[in-house]
Amino acid sequence: MAKELTPREENYSQWYNDLVIKADLAENSAVRGCMVIKPYGYAIWEKMQSILDGMFKKTGHSNAYFPLFIPKSFFSKEAAHVEGFAKECAVVTHYRLKIDENSNEIVVDETAKLEEELIIRPTSETIIWNTYKNWIQSYRDLPILVNQWVNVVRWEMRTRFFLRTTEFLWQEGHTAHATEVEALEETRKMVNLYADFAENHMAMPVIKGRKTESERFAGALDTYAIEALMQDGKALQSGTSHFLGQNFARAFDVQFTSKEGNLEYVWATSWGVSTRLMGALIMAHSDNNGLVLPPKLAPLQVVIVPIYKNQEDFARISEAAGKIKADLEKSGLSVKYDDRDTHKPGWKFSEYEMKGVPVRIAIGPRDIENNTVEVARRDTLEKKIVARDMLNDIVIGLMDEIQQNIFRKSLDLRRDNTHMVDDWDEFREIMDKKPGFVLAHWDGTAETELKIKEETKATIRCIPFDAEVEKGKCIYTGKPSEKRVLFAIAY
Amino acid sequence: MAKELTPREENYSQWYNDLVIKADLAENSAVRGCMVIKPYGYAIWEKMQSILDGMFKKTGHSNAYFPLFIPKSFFSKEAAHVEGFAKECAVVTHYRLKIDENSNEIVVDETAKLEEELIIRPTSETIIWNTYKNWIQSYRDLPILVNQWVNVVRWEMRTRFFLRTTEFLWQEGHTAHATEVEALEETRKMVNLYADFAENHMAMPVIKGRKTESERFAGALDTYAIEALMQDGKALQSGTSHFLGQNFARAFDVQFTSKEGNLEYVWATSWGVSTRLMGALIMAHSDNNGLVLPPKLAPLQVVIVPIYKNQEDFARISEAAGKIKADLEKSGLSVKYDDRDTHKPGWKFSEYEMKGVPVRIAIGPRDIENNTVEVARRDTLEKKIVARDMLNDIVIGLMDEIQQNIFRKSLDLRRDNTHMVDDWDEFREIMDKKPGFVLAHWDGTAETELKIKEETKATIRCIPFDAEVEKGKCIYTGKPSEKRVLFAIAY
Repeated sequence: MAKELTPREENYSQWYNDLVIKADLAENSAVRGCMVIKPYGYAIWEKMQSILDGMFKKTGHSNAYFPLFIPKSFFSKEAAHVEGFAKECAVVTHYRLKIDENSNEIVVDETAKLEEELIIRPTSETIIWNTYKNWIQSYRDLPILVNQWVNVVRWEMRTRFFLRTTEFLWQEGHTAHATEVEALEETRKMVNLYADFAENHMAMPVIKGRKTESERFAGALDTYAIEALMQDGKALQSGTSHFLGQNFARAFDVQFTSKEGNLEYVWATSWGVSTRLMGALIMAHSDNNGLVLPPKLAPLQVVIVPIYKNQEDFARISEAAGKIKADLEKSGLSVKYDDRDTHKPGWKFSEYEMKGVPVRIAIGPRDIENNTVEVARRDTLEKKIVARDMLNDIVIGLMDEIQQNIFRKSLDLRRDNTHMVDDWDEFREIMDKKPGFVLAHWDGTAETELKIKEETKATIRCIPFDAEVEKGKCIYTGKPSEKRVLFAIAY
Repeated sequence: MAKELTPREENYSQWYNDLVIKADLAENSAVRGCMVIKPYGYAIWEKMQSILDGMFKKTGHSNAYFPLFIPKSFFSKEAAHVEGFAKECAVVTHYRLKIDENSNEIVVDETAKLEEELIIRPTSETIIWNTYKNWIQSYRDLPILVNQWVNVVRWEMRTRFFLRTTEFLWQEGHTAHATEVEALEETRKMVNLYADFAENHMAMPVIKGRKTESERFAGALDTYAIEALMQDGKALQSGTSHFLGQNFARAFDVQFTSKEGNLEYVWATSWGVSTRLMGALIMAHSDNNGLVLPPKLAPLQVVIVPIYKNQEDFARISEAAGKIKADLEKSGLSVKYDDRDTHKPGWKFSEYEMKGVPVRIAIGPRDIENNTVEVARRDTLEKKIVARDMLNDIVIGLMDEIQQNIFRKSLDLRRDNTHMVDDWDEFREIMDKKPGFVLAHWDGTAETELKIKEETKATIRCIPFDAEVEKGKCIYTGKPSEKRVLFAIAY
């Protein structure tokens, strides 16, 4: 095989990095903490975007665009918000370069200093609520259901491909409502939409729930999240939806006249997913041969590889491949016939395994004689010989089957690595030896949460929406508790 | 009418600004020179993006994503490039804010100063060619045909909605080729693609040609452009495609082994269009009633407005409107039934005229009786009564007709305002009194070009590809010339 990954079992984190590079998804750039998303990686992100964007529009949202820059003073208006983001802000201070007369080098022109520094948006609540102020006068102007697909910057000290990068791509929805009930409904609707996307498109099971106070978004009254379990037993927060109450409306003085004629502050939500989902997708399904993609997100769903010794065979195979490709494309699949003569079939096989193409079709001279092809599926690596006239139906069937199979595998993995724990020593041992999801009782205090984190690195990922009421004792303090919460070591 | 524009004839520039605001396309943000693109404006941009993106992909290009930040030192590597952009660069110097202990205000943390300043990309040649260095070893790695849809920043002193803003959205294609011929072909292919988009989707005729040396992109050996004529007689450069030769390959040391085994520098192109196209679209077709959109780019193609006095009529009209909407949507049109009871029909009529919705259907009680509707087209403002059973075909026909009609109108406008001029006084008078496109002879020197600009504000927009060889004398110096070039006062 041309490209080999560090085995998952040996070094999970190295396996992940190898995979990102060797599957041509991304690479490090010359700018610390910023990556280049390569065409193949970006094609997967485009698929995600296009599906999510459709879901947003179907639920009544429109896209817009707000500035990259946020005046420093805006930032300070919501106290919790600035505290959450101030330490990781890229700051623009000047607007011109010049050639230094002595050194002949390009330097910052000190005469072009901004009066007020501009922050590169780490998130856009402040600039957006400053804008909404002008859009909202009456209840008739509400709700506002707006989203934007943009880049944001958070100055991270330790970065990892997709999971944590200084610049990343995301969407941020920002909605404005006349009532608390409506804003809460929106918050819930969007976390449900994210869960739907994660499970039905990414084939990645998630747990929906509320964040504890200490894990909330800076400036939110409540944060809902979806949490997924990766193959190494760590949790990955994959999407969040925030109920912002009237915090930003107060900070930016956004009031409206209600139906009853009263002046009231507007209720807000914000919600987002980012290129972090790429990291989740990679880690949820892939193996030591490379990426495993759910067919619904695979830029290339089927690849056809010819196997031949002479030009005569090649011509006959190419003719057959052309027909197969056309048929599959008619069924709406994305298909490539890789007829390059610069690489051997074996090299191509591992290349497309590395890239996670769901189905591979190989055609050799004997297949032409027998009117068959070899079909290999990426998820199980199974191969079988298939009659040409059955091929279309079989491949279409495989798309569904693979989508479901990798979801089921992830579900099994999560089941096998989710533990109901009532004993502190057991809790510690799990987090230390074989981490996973742990459902345990908690006394509801930030203090206990912090101590558990300090001793085990585990955090409360969420208080699951579907947690049953069940009397119990806090795993750490023994104090009474009403329901179990979800603990894990998180990315 | 609820919203009135300053008449075009009175103050063209104010008319444009009014229109952008009143048609809900964009507004100024709190950040100098940066605008907020509002949902309706963004929906038009999304249509442009989606069509262009399809055209790029059809011609073999893929999307990717490169960092927002460019290290200052990269910038200096291509001399002409840095000279062209240094004076308008936003510079990031720090990566943290803190709370000042004395004033209790948020300030830049001086201890978090970057070792090397980062420039917000004004264009991405430098960071991309630094990346391509690692992607290209052999001729087998070529061509690279990559595009990105991103935001860029150029610190403009005087800004105007869409036409010139500090931050703007664009796509930038960056391709790498083994031969000069191939790179030149790509450069030409992309300017042709832009012209195709402008004429067949934006309904805006353009002239394709080469830029003179002084109007070239900083770092290019040749720049091709499309130039359109606006209703006020000014030219708008609407898209450019650059042949970069081996300049960036040399600056970033990007060499490849050719088929013949030689080490050679890679040939480059770059090409882009931006949200400036929104400005072109607005100015090309709109009138004193507001925006006029070509049906192919209208987010909303048909609006249905009910006219009623009582709830019984309203119910019957709504039923009919629902059926009409469903039928038109089946034909692939985007349709809205505006049944709001908060606004009168007349108000809605002017609202949708302002927003440039190509076709408006009004239904009143008499229409229900007669099985008719009133159809109004936005481009000519003509109305007629139409039988319900003919409606679908008529509306579909109107989409084509409007698309063609506004293109024809623009073409007529350009014909009427394009002059062949051989006399300097006439040239000056045209530029002074009633500017337009002027085809005139030029002696080929930058000196003459500059003098003409100083005396008349007119610049050479391009040397048209289809300019006929024709002996003549330079309009300014009387020196011999081989073909006419295109002069205009430009945005």
